[in-house]
Amino acid sequence: ESTVALGDKDEHPEKQAQTGGASGAAGGGGDDKAIVSYWGVEPAKVTKEDGTEWRWHCFRPWETYQADLSIDLKKHHAPVTFLDKVAYWTVKSLRYPTDVFFQRRYGCRAMMLETVAAVPGMVGGMLLHFQSLRRFEHSGGWIKTLLEEAENERMHLMTFMEVSKPRWYERALVVAVQGIFFNAYFLAYLASPKLAHRVVGYLEEEAIHSYTEFLKELDKGTIENVPAPAIAIDYWRMPPDSTLRDVVMVVRADEAHHRDVNHFASDIHYQGHELKSSPAPLGYH
Amino acid sequence: ESTVALGDKDEHPEKQAQTGGASGAAGGGGDDKAIVSYWGVEPAKVTKEDGTEWRWHCFRPWETYQADLSIDLKKHHAPVTFLDKVAYWTVKSLRYPTDVFFQRRYGCRAMMLETVAAVPGMVGGMLLHFQSLRRFEHSGGWIKTLLEEAENERMHLMTFMEVSKPRWYERALVVAVQGIFFNAYFLAYLASPKLAHRVVGYLEEEAIHSYTEFLKELDKGTIENVPAPAIAIDYWRMPPDSTLRDVVMVVRADEAHHRDVNHFASDIHYQGHELKSSPAPLGYH
Ligand SMILES: [Fe+2]
Ligand SMILES: [Fe+2]
Ligand SMILES: [Fe+2]
Ligand SMILES: [Fe+2]
Repeated sequence: ESTVALGDKDEHPEKQAQTGGASGAAGGGGDDKAIVSYWGVEPAKVTKEDGTEWRWHCFRPWETYQADLSIDLKKHHAPVTFLDKVAYWTVKSLRYPTDVFFQRRYGCRAMMLETVAAVPGMVGGMLLHFQSLRRFEHSGGWIKTLLEEAENERMHLMTFMEVSKPRWYERALVVAVQGIFFNAYFLAYLASPKLAHRVVGYLEEEAIHSYTEFLKELDKGTIENVPAPAIAIDYWRMPPDSTLRDVVMVVRADEAHHRDVNHFASDIHYQGHELKSSPAPLGYH
Repeated sequence: ESTVALGDKDEHPEKQAQTGGASGAAGGGGDDKAIVSYWGVEPAKVTKEDGTEWRWHCFRPWETYQADLSIDLKKHHAPVTFLDKVAYWTVKSLRYPTDVFFQRRYGCRAMMLETVAAVPGMVGGMLLHFQSLRRFEHSGGWIKTLLEEAENERMHLMTFMEVSKPRWYERALVVAVQGIFFNAYFLAYLASPKLAHRVVGYLEEEAIHSYTEFLKELDKGTIENVPAPAIAIDYWRMPPDSTLRDVVMVVRADEAHHRDVNHFASDIHYQGHELKSSPAPLGYH
């Protein structure tokens, strides 16, 4: 029999007692620890290089990296084909309302835009995952590359959250924008991954521009160059005395890497291939 | 200006020539290498511990592991609450048509079921990702844990694919089942993550049962104990002379770990918490 009701009640009476019986977890009572011990899924203790406890659950020491700041920030894919132009002008037309809404509040703008930037990688990665399952085909590493991008954008958000707090109407806006953008990108990716990746490539070009403006405001002093949040220092392995300016620098480098990956993905489709035919740039930072 | 048309044409004339101009990638011509070099996203060369080239793009050496075969295969969550019973009987009622369809062809059954098993982790991980973005909240590591589960299931599929080839009507069935199950699980997770994780917990209990039957057939000799596919040997760090039986053993251990994680996730919700309040069991194999 696959289902042995209360099977291990006899084997581990003490553990059962802690959770109030194998089925008792449902009834509340018992702290998290007790459940962890019942299911045996105690999270591993992780320490930093200096031996102190690792304080983040959303990322682990082996996922941290030093951003490659030497990346060319000016690289641009000139729109030539019809689809390229659609992608280019879609992104350009989205910039106008964004500029009007945020003006020069770049900290706030960064935070809000990262909630959007983390959508395409997750949608693309998910669709490739399901495609891989349906077709019984390998992914060439692209599922993970796109999911990594989504996670990286989420880490950008977790960082900017520490510097600027969203107001209630901004939170409402995020919910609305995410609902629209998720569906739009989902359909776009199904219809034309070539177009979808090109759009992201251009979005990333805009992101680079926006972070460059952010840096200018920091240098002018109109935005205060506060100390870097602890999460950023751990994630990008930055010196402890780093500032917001250093954070914006590494985030901008990340966006340039996303730009490359997405324009590259679009190019692969343009050449009539599927992504899996070209090994994915996993861990490209 | 953020967009410098053909900005680096002058800087890297040779590279441009290879791809036929910054925009020329769209026009075809040029091999993958040329594009890689244009966007600078050359995939890193990865080698095995013995110095030979790593041959898999869909997973990397540092994602491989040795399965913990000592896990308790009999652990079972006795359904007590109404929702638990809904979850339990949903899974039990799905087993009947599965048994009728596959009979004792466990290799084929394993392959088909893995295409379904890889759905919940991806859906759950995606929904938590979007929730984290909307709420400006950390995930506690659960996004990654669920995405890891989805990837692990996909690796099960990539392994069984090597042993048994899907027929055309099985491919058609996978497309239909994925369409239904994706939507059903998506809605279930939105409505009640407690129920959704419980369903997966019971599905994994059934998977353990099914792999145990598979092992019996292998031992009886009704299914031939062929050598383990190369991908399995690399993914689970198995000895080179491993067989299909060894593969089924480690896959079954994986399912037992998924069972624990999902029942645990459901228990957290039952206790009135959200997943993020309890650190996720990342890398629980
Ligand atoms: Fe970003
Ligand atoms: Fe980005
Ligand atoms: Fe599986
Ligand atoms: Fe599983």
